[in-house]
Amino acid sequence: MRIALGLEYDGSAFCGWQTQPNGCGIQDHLQAALASIAGHPIEVVAAGRTDTGVHASAQVVHFDCLADRDDNAWVRGTNTGLTPALRVLWSHRVPDDFHARYSARSRTYRYVLLNEPVASAVLRQRVGWYHRPLELALMQQAAKALVGEHDFSAFRDAQCQAKSPVRNLAVASVERAGSYFLFTFRANAFLHHMIRNIVGSLVYIGAGKHPPAWIGELMASKDRRNAAPTFMPDGLYLSAIEYDPAFGLPAFRQIGV
Amino acid sequence: MRIALGLEYDGSAFCGWQTQPNGCGIQDHLQAALASIAGHPIEVVAAGRTDTGVHASAQVVHFDCLADRDDNAWVRGTNTGLTPALRVLWSHRVPDDFHARYSARSRTYRYVLLNEPVASAVLRQRVGWYHRPLELALMQQAAKALVGEHDFSAFRDAQCQAKSPVRNLAVASVERAGSYFLFTFRANAFLHHMIRNIVGSLVYIGAGKHPPAWIGELMASKDRRNAAPTFMPDGLYLSAIEYDPAFGLPAFRQIGV
Repeated sequence: MRIALGLEYDGSAFCGWQTQPNGCGIQDHLQAALASIAGHPIEVVAAGRTDTGVHASAQVVHFDCLADRDDNAWVRGTNTGLTPALRVLWSHRVPDDFHARYSARSRTYRYVLLNEPVASAVLRQRVGWYHRPLELALMQQAAKALVGEHDFSAFRDAQCQAKSPVRNLAVASVERAGSYFLFTFRANAFLHHMIRNIVGSLVYIGAGKHPPAWIGELMASKDRRNAAPTFMPDGLYLSAIEYDPAFGLPAFRQIGV
Repeated sequence: MRIALGLEYDGSAFCGWQTQPNGCGIQDHLQAALASIAGHPIEVVAAGRTDTGVHASAQVVHFDCLADRDDNAWVRGTNTGLTPALRVLWSHRVPDDFHARYSARSRTYRYVLLNEPVASAVLRQRVGWYHRPLELALMQQAAKALVGEHDFSAFRDAQCQAKSPVRNLAVASVERAGSYFLFTFRANAFLHHMIRNIVGSLVYIGAGKHPPAWIGELMASKDRRNAAPTFMPDGLYLSAIEYDPAFGLPAFRQIGV
């Protein structure tokens, strides 16, 4: 039978989602804990394979198992065997045609950026940080140019293995909440480092280093060397995965007050 | 000359405020970093000596030094020598009669409690957690009984060295924000473990283990053995210190969005 799980994790405690020879991937931790509940090896497939240091408030995975366990065993039992930096929030039996990665209609990432002269001690590794004042209106204007179907080669990491650099951004927005800027991006899929590269370039625009129209010029250039450096992973969260409601997956809770 | 500093720290990265033989106290880290800026040993005095695992969004300290450095040196210079779990937010020259501990008119602590079946991976060690549903109105009713001057022996740790168990609580309140409960306590001073012991007992009341009137009975009993166990430090923040506005200390920023 096939089971879907909802996960929350602190990416700073692992070396990324994917399984690693030394077992430091989030996938490694989860598979080991699930195997001890199932009584046989388990392989999980994730909706989004997050990089080192990137968090998830709403990751979805699926796996196949022979054992018939109730939701309580998959949630509380698995959590007992996991580090506190990784939590299973819910479990849901799904049909065999559900696929955490391929059934996903869209992925939403949020970047939380603290804009203060001094970084946060309490929220270190949980939020990004930029020390000079940023102008919201400039970043909002620039973000608009990202919406829609574009060649995102300028924001694509050299390691990216995607066949095409073209992606369709349904949402690219920036809002302010106190000393924080919240960036939201929604698309069917993203290129490697695409969001962190975009955030870095939006921050350059917010700081006045380039005008908002620079985003369009970057995309037109299709050259990664023109954009800003990859921004720190600390503030990046995989925050929503959209599936056909017919699958009936439970909702995720919000992180923070 | 005398300098006051505003601090933020993640208490989970240290073994409490006070200096320790092995140097793991927050005071040890700060004094070492300040000494390298001042060019001579520095001893700091804090407004509130927080326990292991307890955070501060608004700690105030003072120290005397011979060196004449500008605010930028005390803030950015000191931060360069500190672990990211401890940040100096501001520096302010104060008169010699300012004393971080004795000039403080009141201290405010906040406890942030996540009330969900599963703990938070991202905010672990940053928020407390209780897994069964809590009733806000019951806790609010109980908290009212704490306000004013009382003998708090029932919430006093055996290690407490205060001369008197009597304290005057100006504020004891509970509010709800989504899946979180926010407890606020303000007083001139607190007994050792007093807030964590009170939070533990309020949680018992919120969970229906005792009626709200139990708080009054506990206080009347003056016996620590009757109250709930000391609640985890993870969600506790020293969040405000009140001084005579004439000292002109800078304001603190808020943590979180």
